[in-house]
Amino acid sequence: MEKIMVNKLKNPKLSNPVLIVGLPGIGNVGKIAVEYMIDKLKMIKMIDIVSQYLPPQVFINEDGLINLAKNSIYYKKRIKDNDLIIVTGDFQGTTQEGQYELSYLILELAKELKASAVYTLGGYSIGKIVENPRVLGAVSDRKMLESIKGAGVVFPKGEPGGGIVGSAGLILGLATEVFDISSACLMGETSGYFADPRGAIALIQALSRLLSIDVDLSDLQERSKQIEEITGKMQQEGMQPKPPGKDDLGYFG
Amino acid sequence: MEKIMVNKLKNPKLSNPVLIVGLPGIGNVGKIAVEYMIDKLKMIKMIDIVSQYLPPQVFINEDGLINLAKNSIYYKKRIKDNDLIIVTGDFQGTTQEGQYELSYLILELAKELKASAVYTLGGYSIGKIVENPRVLGAVSDRKMLESIKGAGVVFPKGEPGGGIVGSAGLILGLATEVFDISSACLMGETSGYFADPRGAIALIQALSRLLSIDVDLSDLQERSKQIEEITGKMQQEGMQPKPPGKDDLGYFG
Amino acid sequence: MEKIMVNKLKNPKLSNPVLIVGLPGIGNVGKIAVEYMIDKLKMIKMIDIVSQYLPPQVFINEDGLINLAKNSIYYKKRIKDNDLIIVTGDFQGTTQEGQYELSYLILELAKELKASAVYTLGGYSIGKIVENPRVLGAVSDRKMLESIKGAGVVFPKGEPGGGIVGSAGLILGLATEVFDISSACLMGETSGYFADPRGAIALIQALSRLLSIDVDLSDLQERSKQIEEITGKMQQEGMQPKPPGKDDLGYFG
Amino acid sequence: MEKIMVNKLKNPKLSNPVLIVGLPGIGNVGKIAVEYMIDKLKMIKMIDIVSQYLPPQVFINEDGLINLAKNSIYYKKRIKDNDLIIVTGDFQGTTQEGQYELSYLILELAKELKASAVYTLGGYSIGKIVENPRVLGAVSDRKMLESIKGAGVVFPKGEPGGGIVGSAGLILGLATEVFDISSACLMGETSGYFADPRGAIALIQALSRLLSIDVDLSDLQERSKQIEEITGKMQQEGMQPKPPGKDDLGYFG
Repeated sequence: MEKIMVNKLKNPKLSNPVLIVGLPGIGNVGKIAVEYMIDKLKMIKMIDIVSQYLPPQVFINEDGLINLAKNSIYYKKRIKDNDLIIVTGDFQGTTQEGQYELSYLILELAKELKASAVYTLGGYSIGKIVENPRVLGAVSDRKMLESIKGAGVVFPKGEPGGGIVGSAGLILGLATEVFDISSACLMGETSGYFADPRGAIALIQALSRLLSIDVDLSDLQERSKQIEEITGKMQQEGMQPKPPGKDDLGYFG
Repeated sequence: MEKIMVNKLKNPKLSNPVLIVGLPGIGNVGKIAVEYMIDKLKMIKMIDIVSQYLPPQVFINEDGLINLAKNSIYYKKRIKDNDLIIVTGDFQGTTQEGQYELSYLILELAKELKASAVYTLGGYSIGKIVENPRVLGAVSDRKMLESIKGAGVVFPKGEPGGGIVGSAGLILGLATEVFDISSACLMGETSGYFADPRGAIALIQALSRLLSIDVDLSDLQERSKQIEEITGKMQQEGMQPKPPGKDDLGYFG
Repeated sequence: MEKIMVNKLKNPKLSNPVLIVGLPGIGNVGKIAVEYMIDKLKMIKMIDIVSQYLPPQVFINEDGLINLAKNSIYYKKRIKDNDLIIVTGDFQGTTQEGQYELSYLILELAKELKASAVYTLGGYSIGKIVENPRVLGAVSDRKMLESIKGAGVVFPKGEPGGGIVGSAGLILGLATEVFDISSACLMGETSGYFADPRGAIALIQALSRLLSIDVDLSDLQERSKQIEEITGKMQQEGMQPKPPGKDDLGYFG
Repeated sequence: MEKIMVNKLKNPKLSNPVLIVGLPGIGNVGKIAVEYMIDKLKMIKMIDIVSQYLPPQVFINEDGLINLAKNSIYYKKRIKDNDLIIVTGDFQGTTQEGQYELSYLILELAKELKASAVYTLGGYSIGKIVENPRVLGAVSDRKMLESIKGAGVVFPKGEPGGGIVGSAGLILGLATEVFDISSACLMGETSGYFADPRGAIALIQALSRLLSIDVDLSDLQERSKQIEEITGKMQQEGMQPKPPGKDDLGYFG
């Protein structure tokens, strides 16, 4: 089989699109943010990606029907503003080769669709729950730097110290050095202890300012409040909140 | 060498076959079930698969003759009902790439043989010994859902929670999303503590209802009884039953 | 680069050769045996194999000159008896793919040279020091079974229980099922605690009977005696003998 | 994507160049040495290498601009002496395949540029801080042996005992046995506890004698002094110095 199988479901004509990538990661804030946007903006799925670089795993919906682990790409046409493309998925590539191959493929697509910019979303783990998470940035070029600074993204000296590891960093790196597409990584602060809507909200707010996106955040704020109540109780009862486990699978076929 | 070497031993003309996959996994229930069926139905081996995706290992029979680790495919022609094809083997693919490549190959074969359906068998670990194991299901489509519900397979909401990992899930996923073959995964409940004939019996009973297979289960029931006596004694003596070890190899050449 | 680079140093005309493989493994008995035979029989190197499947490592001789980690093949022409080919090396392939690719390559060579039989050598770990190590066998076919039984190789029922893992098993398995070359694995009993000349002596004695090889074993017997004196002292002093470490490298460049 | 992407920035005509490789490793002494030389000799970057064999990671400079993890090659034309080529980078290849492929590529380039010799730099860990680190050597041939002995490089019998693992060893090995380029590995003694300028100074001094390079070492000596003050204080306070951590990344996107 081919290592990556691309299934094009739609072939929309897109005008000057920007591409946003939100895959699973720290606090899952990037994935939560884009899934919320896909839902609220009623975005349309255009591409499914099945790949050996993703785990051999299916998910079961409540009717007993399955979905194979995959990455998917959605679009939304807009009248005045840039069209939107969002990449999300169940997993990042599980190997170094998979990280590179899947990131490269996404950027080939961005090039083909003449994307004017690429934004990758991630979480920045600060090890404690934060009231008002900031969004940290890293960029391909000075013009992008000014652009996202204008949207409230911050660039604290020396943070993140170790650079950015994984697809959010790699897509930015390949966009900058191989594809020559203006790009940025936006990192929402998160405790990293659980799937964290608050960091996701901060990311959507930054993107909204950048790209004139209008998303009603109330459902996500509600979800955030519920989680905070639960974690608040857990802490009162002396329990340690933990990151969500991919590992407690009841089944290995 | 080729990463997968397919050795066709027979080239039978099969009519409307269904393909059943039972590879090693939790409680080994899938593999026990299909090996019992191969034996009792006097199925004929048609294909041997040797592959880099399987461990570099030979098994020694009691005469000192060896068998290289492999996957094998058996068939049985039937008069009124669908012909049967069974896939089994010593191991699942040991890497993610191996899982995908071997699963894909099996489905290419299923397509070539015009298989009308694919059933993958697995165990569902419930962490305790159960008197009457259920068979849980996951399916490609609603028609298959109704079909296997009719055979007593159950679909408890939210189980298995983490989806299905490994070849039983992946073959179902690729059959559904890439090959468009109607398919299901049947998971026999098992403690997961040892090679468990009881979960295998439940799987064979479900398949028998689905596919009008007539298999005398008495030998497997006998084996089940023997194991229960042993584990019963172990528990009385305060010993913990353990999953069967692939690891206590006396030799690494 | 090519994953395996074969450097042919000589191109001898060999008559009805048998191929013997002794690579590092348990107690290193296979490698010790063949290196001793290469030395005592004054065998000539015909092939060097450099490969990505071997560690990125050089060894330094006492003059400061280096040797890249490799596998090598030696030959000896004989007048009345089968010519001999011996395969040895610094390492086995370090990955499953490497195990298969290197084993396959060796068998392609055996086929090309019209080898009449292949013998792989290994150690069989019994966890304690043994006075008179036996040689256990596993074979491709009944004719080979009788042949090596006649040379004193034993086939205790159910040993080795887990089969044979690694190149000694895999080469036997591929020779049997893919290349159709008569073959056997000979396993010298060893404590497995250290590089063990005694198991190697047992292997050479079995090969000598099988292939009319005449090797003076006195140097190896001397080495064995020295080791036993050391380990004897260690045990008197309450020290636990340990397997030789590949891991205490002083340098990683 | 290609597994290794070579981006040629300059195409200088070089005369009889020697190639020096300093990649991250023990005490980072090789990398520190070549980076210092690149800076002080005002060497010019000619090649960038982006590769799947390097981690999926970007580094962020103090302005928020990123650099993708890579290897890079620099050159310096000289009038009387051999021109210089230096290879350095953020990482060595992270897999065995990556080690071989990247090392092979560097040597193909050396061949293409008609390099007269290749020197790889590394650290030799001695587990304690040393006042006057020696430079140990390993070589391809006797002529190179005499040449670097003349520059003060030492060849203590049996050191390094386990040979040389990683790119410094592998490039030497492939240069010797596949490319037939005269080559040496120079290993600066280091405690291995931290990024160690003192071992780097010893390496530059040896190279200076070998290749008539004139580098002002005062900045590196200053850095060395500062580190010694810090580690001296740490030891007075009973703290254990530790190797620098690649692992304390605050972010995984």
